[in-house]
Amino acid sequence: MHKPLRIALVGHGFMGAAHSQAWRVAPRFFDLPLQPEMSLLVGRDAGRTAAAAAKWGWTETSTNWREAVEREDIDVVDIVTPGASHAEIAIAALEAGKHVLCEKPLANTVDEATAMADAAARAARNGVQAMVGFTYRRLPATTHARDLVAGGAIGDIRQVRAAYLQDWLVDPEAPLSWRLEQDKAGSGVLGDLGAHIIDLAQYVTGRKLTEVSGTLETLVDSRPLPDSAGADGGLGGQRGTGTARGAVTVDDVALFTGRFEDGVLGTFEATRMATGRKNALRLEVSGTRGAVSFDLEDLNFLEFYDFTGPADRQGFTRIMVTEPDHPYVGAWWPAGHSLGYEHGFVHQVTDFVTAVAAGSPPSPSFADGLQVQEVLDSVTRSAATSSSWTPVG
Amino acid sequence: MHKPLRIALVGHGFMGAAHSQAWRVAPRFFDLPLQPEMSLLVGRDAGRTAAAAAKWGWTETSTNWREAVEREDIDVVDIVTPGASHAEIAIAALEAGKHVLCEKPLANTVDEATAMADAAARAARNGVQAMVGFTYRRLPATTHARDLVAGGAIGDIRQVRAAYLQDWLVDPEAPLSWRLEQDKAGSGVLGDLGAHIIDLAQYVTGRKLTEVSGTLETLVDSRPLPDSAGADGGLGGQRGTGTARGAVTVDDVALFTGRFEDGVLGTFEATRMATGRKNALRLEVSGTRGAVSFDLEDLNFLEFYDFTGPADRQGFTRIMVTEPDHPYVGAWWPAGHSLGYEHGFVHQVTDFVTAVAAGSPPSPSFADGLQVQEVLDSVTRSAATSSSWTPVG
Amino acid sequence: MHKPLRIALVGHGFMGAAHSQAWRVAPRFFDLPLQPEMSLLVGRDAGRTAAAAAKWGWTETSTNWREAVEREDIDVVDIVTPGASHAEIAIAALEAGKHVLCEKPLANTVDEATAMADAAARAARNGVQAMVGFTYRRLPATTHARDLVAGGAIGDIRQVRAAYLQDWLVDPEAPLSWRLEQDKAGSGVLGDLGAHIIDLAQYVTGRKLTEVSGTLETLVDSRPLPDSAGADGGLGGQRGTGTARGAVTVDDVALFTGRFEDGVLGTFEATRMATGRKNALRLEVSGTRGAVSFDLEDLNFLEFYDFTGPADRQGFTRIMVTEPDHPYVGAWWPAGHSLGYEHGFVHQVTDFVTAVAAGSPPSPSFADGLQVQEVLDSVTRSAATSSSWTPVG
Amino acid sequence: MHKPLRIALVGHGFMGAAHSQAWRVAPRFFDLPLQPEMSLLVGRDAGRTAAAAAKWGWTETSTNWREAVEREDIDVVDIVTPGASHAEIAIAALEAGKHVLCEKPLANTVDEATAMADAAARAARNGVQAMVGFTYRRLPATTHARDLVAGGAIGDIRQVRAAYLQDWLVDPEAPLSWRLEQDKAGSGVLGDLGAHIIDLAQYVTGRKLTEVSGTLETLVDSRPLPDSAGADGGLGGQRGTGTARGAVTVDDVALFTGRFEDGVLGTFEATRMATGRKNALRLEVSGTRGAVSFDLEDLNFLEFYDFTGPADRQGFTRIMVTEPDHPYVGAWWPAGHSLGYEHGFVHQVTDFVTAVAAGSPPSPSFADGLQVQEVLDSVTRSAATSSSWTPVG
Repeated sequence: MHKPLRIALVGHGFMGAAHSQAWRVAPRFFDLPLQPEMSLLVGRDAGRTAAAAAKWGWTETSTNWREAVEREDIDVVDIVTPGASHAEIAIAALEAGKHVLCEKPLANTVDEATAMADAAARAARNGVQAMVGFTYRRLPATTHARDLVAGGAIGDIRQVRAAYLQDWLVDPEAPLSWRLEQDKAGSGVLGDLGAHIIDLAQYVTGRKLTEVSGTLETLVDSRPLPDSAGADGGLGGQRGTGTARGAVTVDDVALFTGRFEDGVLGTFEATRMATGRKNALRLEVSGTRGAVSFDLEDLNFLEFYDFTGPADRQGFTRIMVTEPDHPYVGAWWPAGHSLGYEHGFVHQVTDFVTAVAAGSPPSPSFADGLQVQEVLDSVTRSAATSSSWTPVG
Repeated sequence: MHKPLRIALVGHGFMGAAHSQAWRVAPRFFDLPLQPEMSLLVGRDAGRTAAAAAKWGWTETSTNWREAVEREDIDVVDIVTPGASHAEIAIAALEAGKHVLCEKPLANTVDEATAMADAAARAARNGVQAMVGFTYRRLPATTHARDLVAGGAIGDIRQVRAAYLQDWLVDPEAPLSWRLEQDKAGSGVLGDLGAHIIDLAQYVTGRKLTEVSGTLETLVDSRPLPDSAGADGGLGGQRGTGTARGAVTVDDVALFTGRFEDGVLGTFEATRMATGRKNALRLEVSGTRGAVSFDLEDLNFLEFYDFTGPADRQGFTRIMVTEPDHPYVGAWWPAGHSLGYEHGFVHQVTDFVTAVAAGSPPSPSFADGLQVQEVLDSVTRSAATSSSWTPVG
Repeated sequence: MHKPLRIALVGHGFMGAAHSQAWRVAPRFFDLPLQPEMSLLVGRDAGRTAAAAAKWGWTETSTNWREAVEREDIDVVDIVTPGASHAEIAIAALEAGKHVLCEKPLANTVDEATAMADAAARAARNGVQAMVGFTYRRLPATTHARDLVAGGAIGDIRQVRAAYLQDWLVDPEAPLSWRLEQDKAGSGVLGDLGAHIIDLAQYVTGRKLTEVSGTLETLVDSRPLPDSAGADGGLGGQRGTGTARGAVTVDDVALFTGRFEDGVLGTFEATRMATGRKNALRLEVSGTRGAVSFDLEDLNFLEFYDFTGPADRQGFTRIMVTEPDHPYVGAWWPAGHSLGYEHGFVHQVTDFVTAVAAGSPPSPSFADGLQVQEVLDSVTRSAATSSSWTPVG
Repeated sequence: MHKPLRIALVGHGFMGAAHSQAWRVAPRFFDLPLQPEMSLLVGRDAGRTAAAAAKWGWTETSTNWREAVEREDIDVVDIVTPGASHAEIAIAALEAGKHVLCEKPLANTVDEATAMADAAARAARNGVQAMVGFTYRRLPATTHARDLVAGGAIGDIRQVRAAYLQDWLVDPEAPLSWRLEQDKAGSGVLGDLGAHIIDLAQYVTGRKLTEVSGTLETLVDSRPLPDSAGADGGLGGQRGTGTARGAVTVDDVALFTGRFEDGVLGTFEATRMATGRKNALRLEVSGTRGAVSFDLEDLNFLEFYDFTGPADRQGFTRIMVTEPDHPYVGAWWPAGHSLGYEHGFVHQVTDFVTAVAAGSPPSPSFADGLQVQEVLDSVTRSAATSSSWTPVG
C-alpha cells in the first residue's frame, strides 16, 4: 500500500470536475507511487461546495481556501479557481509547504506569475513541487508529436501553425460570464485558449517564443447578464434571458505571429468566433524531414508526414494513437480503443504525483507558466502598438 | 443519500477493467437513483483477483462465483467471464434474486441463451432485472443515430451496411488466446465482433433480422501458444514467443447478408484481418429521406445526410456529438469535449441502475441477447449450407 | 507528324461525351504514336447526332453504325451504345478489320460476350485489337494501388472489400431510363456498377473471382416514364413529371461475396440506393504487410497502410496521387494539381492507341470483359438459388 | 455557327498548357457566344514555341509578342508570361484594341498595375475588355461558397482564415527558378500564392482588404542553379545537380493579418515550406449564421456549416459540389463525377468570352488586379516596418 497523498481542491467549476475525475481515476489505471486521497474541497458557497463534494467524492469541504493551506493533513493544493486568485492561493500554499498544481494560465498578470514562479523556486529548495496544468500536453497524440519532433523525425523545424478555434461566442446573445470580464479572467480568449497553443507549440517544438506581433479584437462588446452566477465555469451555451447587459471587457479573437528562439516563425489564432469549430486546437509543425499535425477534435489521432520515404508513398499518415507503445496508452485499453478529453487530466496528476514522489521538479513548472504569461503580455503590448514586433519578457 | 446497490463483478480481464471503471465513475456524473457499491470481485486465481480488486477498488474478493450469487449482501451480479460460463452464472444469480448485467454475446449457444432468457423472464416476475451488455448502443453518437432514425429523419430505410473491422490477427504469429478457441469463446469474430454489429444495426434501425446468408472463414488455422494464460482478455498485441502452436478453432472472418423484418437488406462484415483498421465498427443506414453513418474509430462523430433540404447544400454533415442536448452528453463536459471508449460502459450501468430502481425491464434484455444469438447461429448454419438463405430462429 | 488513326464513335450519350473529350485531349498531353482523328459520329437520330458532332468536334455523322464498320477510312470503332447492341457492332467491326474500344459491360449476356471474345481472338491474329473500357483502372490512384500490390507492398492478400455506391434511385419518383429496362441494359446496378468493382478488384489484386454467393434486389419496381427519350444516357436527376409509370425490370441493389482464385474472400456491393453517396466506388485490399484503400469520390488520393514500419507511426497514409512519378501524372500538371473523372478516359485512349500502334493486345481484353460477364452471370444464378455458392463460368 | 474569336497566347510554360487546354475544351462543353480559335502562340525560343504549338494545337507561332498585338486577325491577347512583362504587353494589346486576359498577379509592382488598370479603363470606353486570371474563383466549390455568402447563408461575417500551403521549397536543394528571383517574379510566395488567397478571400466575402500587418521571410537564401532554363514554369520538383548556387531574392513564407472594409479580421498565410501540403489553398469564412470552408486539395467539396438548424444536427456538411445545380457543373458530367484543376481555366475563358461577346466588363477586372497588387505592396511595406498596420493603397 502506497503512502497517501492528501489533496485539497480549491474551486469547483468545470475544471473542478475534470480534476476530481483525474484524482479518482489515475490510481486505478496507473501505478502511482503515492496514493491520492480526495480530502478537501474548497468553494465560496457552502451549499454548492457540499453538493460538489458529495457528487465528486471529496471527504470534507471548506469555504475558506486558507484552510487548505494551513491544515497539516493536506499535502497538495490543487487550484482551479479563476486566474485572479491563483497567485495568492498558490504562494500561500507553497510557503506552507504544500505541493501545488495550478490551472492555466498561471496568473492574470506577469507580476503575479513572477511572484508565483519565485515562490515555486523557493519552495523547490525544500522539496516542495509546483506545476501548471497545461493538460493538452498529456494526450497520447500530443506527447507522441513531441517525441517524434524531439527524435528528429521531422528534421529541422521550418514553420509552426497553431490555432484554437471555438464558437461559443458567435451568438451575440450568449451570456456574459466571468471569462468575459477582464478583472476576473485577466484576458479573454488570449489567456484562455491562446495560452494553450503557446504552451503546446513550445512543448512540441522544444523551443520558446522570443518575440511576437499580435492583434486583439472584441467583436461583441456587450452581452446579456446571466440569470445567476452559475457554476458552469463560464462555458455557458444557454442564451441570456434578461434584458440587462454587461460589458465584455476582454478580447474574443487573438491573432499573432511569433518567432521562436532559433528564428522559426509560427502563426497563432485563438478565437471563440470560429463558427462550427467546437474545440479545434490545431497544431502543425513543418520540418525539413517531415511534419506533424494535430486537431483536438480528433484527439486520438496524429497526422505524421515522412518526407524521407519513397516519393510515391508519401502523404499524411493518420496514426490512431491508441497502441500500447504510444505514450500513456498502455495503462488503458487494448489497441484501437479511444480515449477522451478527461484522460489528459488523469495523465497530468499521474505525472505530478510521480514527480512529487521522486522529489523532482514536475513540468511544466511555474517558470514555464510565467514564460507563457510573458508571451501573452507581449501579444497584448504588440496589439497596443500597431502589432509591431515585441520581445517576450 | 441514495440506497446502496451492492455489486459483485465476476471476471477481471479487459471487460472487468471497463466495468469497474463504469461502476466507479457513473455515480460521479449521473444522478443515479441507487448508490452502487463495488463490493465483491470474483476470479479464479486468488492472487490475481486480489491484485485486480486492489487496483480497481473492489472491497472484497472471492475465487468462487457462487459466493456472489449466494451472499445476501449482493444485489447485482455483473458477469464478464468468457461466454462459456455465462449461462450457469447468470441463471443461478437470477434464481437467487440478483439483478444481472451480462457481457455480450449472451452465451455461446442458442440453447444456453434460451435458458438464460427463460430464467430472466421468470425472474422479471419477481422484479429481478437482467440486461445484456451491448455497450456500443450507449455512445452519444449511436444513440443519436437511433433517435434520428426513430424520429423519421431518414425516412423509410432502404439499406443497411455494417462492419466491424480489426486487424490484430493479420500477423500469423499473433498468439493463440481463449478468444480463438471454440470451446471457450463459442465462436470467433462472428460472436465477438459480429454480435456487436447485429445488435447495433437492429437497435439503430428498430428492426430485427429474419434471415441471413453467410460465410465464415479461418485464414490462419494455427498460432503460437502464449507464454502464460495472461490476464489481458485475449486481445494480445504481443507476438507468441514459443515454438508450440495450437489450433485456431474459430472463424476470423465472418461475412453475411441479412434481411430485416420488413425486407430491408443489410450487409455485415466482422473481421480481425482488416489490416490497418484498429476498431472500425461502422454502421450506415440509408433511407428515403436521409442517411446516418458511424465509425467507432471516430466515436464522437455521427455523419447525417439530409435528403430533404436544398439540393445544392446536401452532403454528409459531420455532427460532433458533444453538445449538451445530445444523448448522455449533458452529464459530462462542455460542448466540444470528446468522450472515449469507456464512457459507453458508464452509460450502460447508468441505464441499468435506473431500470433496476424503477423496477422496469432494462434494454437490451436477455431475450434481445437470445435473438442476437439466434442470428449468429443462423449465420453459422447458412455458412455450413453453401451460404443459402437461412431463417433466424 | 504521326500517322493518323481515324475514329468512329458509335453512340452519343454521357459516354459519348466522355470518349469525345478523351480523343480530343489525349494527343495534347501524351505523346501518342498515332494521331487520333475524330472522323465519324454515329447516332440514331440525325439531328441530335449532328448537334453532338458539332459540339464535340466530329467531322462527319451517320445514322447507321454499319457505315463506321464498312468505311475504308475508319481505323477504330469506339462503341458507347447501350449494352444490347455491343455484340453486333463490335463483331462486325472486328470482322471488318477495325480496332474496337467497347464500353463496359462488354455485353448483356455471357453468350454475346463469348461471341465477342471469340471475334476478338480471331481478329487479333490479323493484328486487329479490341479493348473493353473499364476506365477506372486508368486513374493514377487505382493504377498506383495495383502497382503497390503487384510489387508486394501489402504482402499476401487477406481480404478484399469493394463497393460502388450511388443514390440516384433513392427517390421513388426518379424517372425510368433505359438503364432500368432489362431488355436494353441487360441488368441493373449489377452490370453497370457491379462490373466496375469486379474489374477493379481483379485488376488491383491480380486475381480472378472463381465463385460467388449473391443477392439481387429491386426496391422500387415501377417509376414514372420520362417525358422524352432524353440524351442523357439515363442518369437523370430530374423527377418524372407524367403520371404514366413503367416497370423497373432490373436490380437496384446487388450484393455478393466472392472468392478469388487463391481462396481470398471479397465482399461486393453495388447499389443506386445509398443515400448521400454520389459516386463512391470504394476498394480496400488488406494484406499481411499492408493495405490499400480507394474511394472514387476522392479520386486523387490513395490510402496506403504499411504494416512493416515502426508500430508507433503506422496508420493509413493519404497519398495525394498527383506527383510526377505517379502513373499518368507526369503528362499533366505540376505536383498537387488535381485530376478529374474524365482523365481516366484520356488515359484509356492513350493506352489503347499505344497498344494499337505497337500491335500488342491491349488490356483489359474482350476475354477479360467476358470473364467479368461470367462473374455477373454467376451472381445472377446464385441469387436465383438462395445465394448458394456458384462457380464462375 | 458562332463568330470566331481569334486568340494569341503569349508564353508557354505551365500556364500556357493550362490556358491552351481551356481554349480547346471550353467550346465543347459550354455554349460560347463566340468561337475561340487558337491562332497564335508566342514564345522567345522559336523551336520550343513551335513544339508547344504543335502539342497544344496553335495554328501559328511567333517569337515576338508585338506580332500578337499588331496583327489584325487577332482578337484576344492572353498573357501567361512572368509578371515582369505583363504591363508592357497588356498595355500595348489594349491600346491596339485587343481584349486581354492576363495571368495573376497582374504585375510586379503597383506602378505597373496602375498603368495597366488605367489602360484597361481607357480601352473599356472602346468596348475592349480586360480580365485578370484568378482562376480559383471559377471552381464550382468556390463560386458556390461566394453564392452562399452573398445569399446570406452564413449571416454577418465574423472572421476569415486563408492559407495557401505548398512544400516544394522545403528541400534546400530544390533548384532556383525564375519564381525565386525578384527581378523576374516581383515577389515570392506573396505574389504567387498570396495573390490567390487575397483575391479568393475578397471574392467570397465580397469585401476588400483595407489594412494589413505582415511578415515576409526567406528561409533558404541560396539554391543550386538549374541545369537549363527549363520550360516548366519554375515549379521544378527535381533537385539541382550542379554545384553553382544562386541567391533566392524573394520571400518563401508570407504571413499577414488583414482587416476588411467593414472591420472583419482575416489571417493569411502563403508558404512553400509547409511540408506535406501539396496545393492546400484553404479558405474558411465564419459568420453569425454559418460558415464555409474550402481546401483546393479536395476541390470538388465545400464544407458548409448551418448555425440556424436544429442544434443536435449541426456540423460541417461536406457538399460534393458536382450536382447539376452547382455553378458550372451542369455543362459537364452527371452528378458525382469529379472535376479537376484545369476546369477552373475552362470556366475562366467561358466567362471571359461571354463578357467579350456581351460587351460587358469581365470580372475580376484589371482594377481588381491592381487592388490585389496594392494589398501585396502593403504587406511588403508592413513587413519592412516591424509588421505595423499599414493601409492598403
